[in-house]
Amino acid sequence: MNLPPLDPPARILLGPGPSEASPRVLRAQALPLVGHLDPYFVQLMDETMNLLRQVFGTQNRLAIPVSGTGSAGMEAAFVNMLSPGDRVVVGVNGVFGERMCDVARRCGAQVHRVEAEWGQTLPLETIQSALRQHRPQVLALVHAETSTGALQPLEGLSEAAGETGALLLVDTVTSLGGAPVEVDRNGIDICYSGTQKCLSAPPGLAPITFSEVALARLKSRSTRVQSWYLDMSMIEKYWGGERLYHHTAPISAIYGLREALAVVLEEGLEARYLRHRRNAEMLWAGLEDLGLKLVVDRARRIPSLTTVYSPDGVAEQDIRKKLLERYGIEIGGGLGPFKGRVWRIGLMGESSTQRNILYLLAALRELL
Amino acid sequence: MNLPPLDPPARILLGPGPSEASPRVLRAQALPLVGHLDPYFVQLMDETMNLLRQVFGTQNRLAIPVSGTGSAGMEAAFVNMLSPGDRVVVGVNGVFGERMCDVARRCGAQVHRVEAEWGQTLPLETIQSALRQHRPQVLALVHAETSTGALQPLEGLSEAAGETGALLLVDTVTSLGGAPVEVDRNGIDICYSGTQKCLSAPPGLAPITFSEVALARLKSRSTRVQSWYLDMSMIEKYWGGERLYHHTAPISAIYGLREALAVVLEEGLEARYLRHRRNAEMLWAGLEDLGLKLVVDRARRIPSLTTVYSPDGVAEQDIRKKLLERYGIEIGGGLGPFKGRVWRIGLMGESSTQRNILYLLAALRELL
Repeated sequence: MNLPPLDPPARILLGPGPSEASPRVLRAQALPLVGHLDPYFVQLMDETMNLLRQVFGTQNRLAIPVSGTGSAGMEAAFVNMLSPGDRVVVGVNGVFGERMCDVARRCGAQVHRVEAEWGQTLPLETIQSALRQHRPQVLALVHAETSTGALQPLEGLSEAAGETGALLLVDTVTSLGGAPVEVDRNGIDICYSGTQKCLSAPPGLAPITFSEVALARLKSRSTRVQSWYLDMSMIEKYWGGERLYHHTAPISAIYGLREALAVVLEEGLEARYLRHRRNAEMLWAGLEDLGLKLVVDRARRIPSLTTVYSPDGVAEQDIRKKLLERYGIEIGGGLGPFKGRVWRIGLMGESSTQRNILYLLAALRELL
Repeated sequence: MNLPPLDPPARILLGPGPSEASPRVLRAQALPLVGHLDPYFVQLMDETMNLLRQVFGTQNRLAIPVSGTGSAGMEAAFVNMLSPGDRVVVGVNGVFGERMCDVARRCGAQVHRVEAEWGQTLPLETIQSALRQHRPQVLALVHAETSTGALQPLEGLSEAAGETGALLLVDTVTSLGGAPVEVDRNGIDICYSGTQKCLSAPPGLAPITFSEVALARLKSRSTRVQSWYLDMSMIEKYWGGERLYHHTAPISAIYGLREALAVVLEEGLEARYLRHRRNAEMLWAGLEDLGLKLVVDRARRIPSLTTVYSPDGVAEQDIRKKLLERYGIEIGGGLGPFKGRVWRIGLMGESSTQRNILYLLAALRELL
């Protein structure tokens, strides 16, 4: 038993996540542990909920980190809101919409897909007509489709869902903290995210929030939530005034998240969105300058995740390998129909800096 | 936005978990992030699996950390092994056996309980007769019942389960790393634990291992695993040779776990069990010396978690509050029928030291 000390290489994380975490956040994770019912931790839970509410843009009572990654957030959203036989309309224009369908089917729900091409977004009218046709309990959409780089507009969705009695469920894994989400203003009932994207905390937690209407729906269920671990009716008793033990909270990760949220709010949400936007534009111009073609129309691009076609005749995997080995830069490859054809470049949170962009562009210029 | 810096108080963690983490483990969590498909991380995953196999005492191919706390490990065990209508025999002699029943029922399984009083363990003959009567797909038991302090013997269980064709599923959340688990020697098919007990890493991950027979059962399912997040048939493709993306691994927590496992194996499993045992005996003698009565018979006590009746006429919650405020010591209160009557004192991993024991006993002597 003589393992070498852990010594991860220094990477510039410009993939689809994790993004870089600030040293302040990483140091928070090295703080000594306290118990999950310690008065200090209980106060930190309240503080974290308060910070989450600000970042989500909500007055919702329930705004907490699920003890799992962004995908656990997705599962928590669906298992709590769907009972067997329920209908759900899911927008599908990439991997994460597909994943929503998979998760919803495992809840025993009837899944109705509204589809768009990869890289496109879903027109409001298409969504409206699906809602009128299927009258689902839930309308589920991905705000920022990490697999394609397309940003779904949130305007009008709440009204459309409300018209047919559906709750609005939105995945903001790649957008929260990097682009406006505004849960209350956009009338989102269930919203979840991940820590490792624009919040720039390490992966491991999934911030989630439920509106009072969503919580009332949860309370009126006639069947039990199929997941004990993610049953929000029990979890909210730990995060709420009762402090009733459910599962042991991931102390270190919550230290890190609290610190990451403080960093986000010290910068200010508007300033942060502007930084993500400006840096994205710098990247887009630079990529086009290299002769590369962006996948998504300018008006629909995610500021924190850019998709670009790799040049014809170039082994894109080889370029990514060289970027990592020679320059220490991680970018992502394409998934599904984009595999072997598209790069995914994340400019998320701490990773969204002019220095990273210019370095990446310089490296690409050398390699291409 | 001017939050004070995070500054958790120094605590002596002698509750039912989390235990103290060594500074080396905490520092590992402050290391810079790499991507979840980075060659460095992939090698670290292999290393972590290898360390987990040693700690579990198994040659199983699949030995990984589930991306959630110990309860997520429990849920992962059940959702992967049970289909609706399956039968499961569950040993119930405390909170965690009850939790198993709840989780199994949510899988649509028929749950048959084998019960013992809190603080007692389950006789093998009782288990055998339940197996013969119900012929379940799974026999589920808690090795170390954290709510009662009773350690269930593992001898004979595998033979009993095998006789009626059941897989043996064992919860070792509070025992792994502190008392012999020996997955292969004890013929355990599905075994899970938590990081925050005798492994002395922060809470957030659930080590789990499946035997080849259990994996074959998983592959032959006719229904999908109801949890997408915990579906081991997909997760094993990320941890196995394919490295197929499932969800973003919690990088920092895995750094911490790898380091914690290295600490465990550098001490050596036998030496570690002996330390836990000797320290437990020192605690037991000290408590009896204070005139306190232990809950569990000596032969059945968990070395890492001791239950003791609080003195008659003493407000036990008040003593715990004073221990925390005046001495910085956390111990746990009782749950269920033990609420208000029993203290739970953990001596887990890094927390299991002579210094902590003598300090706690001295503090109790002053307070009682």
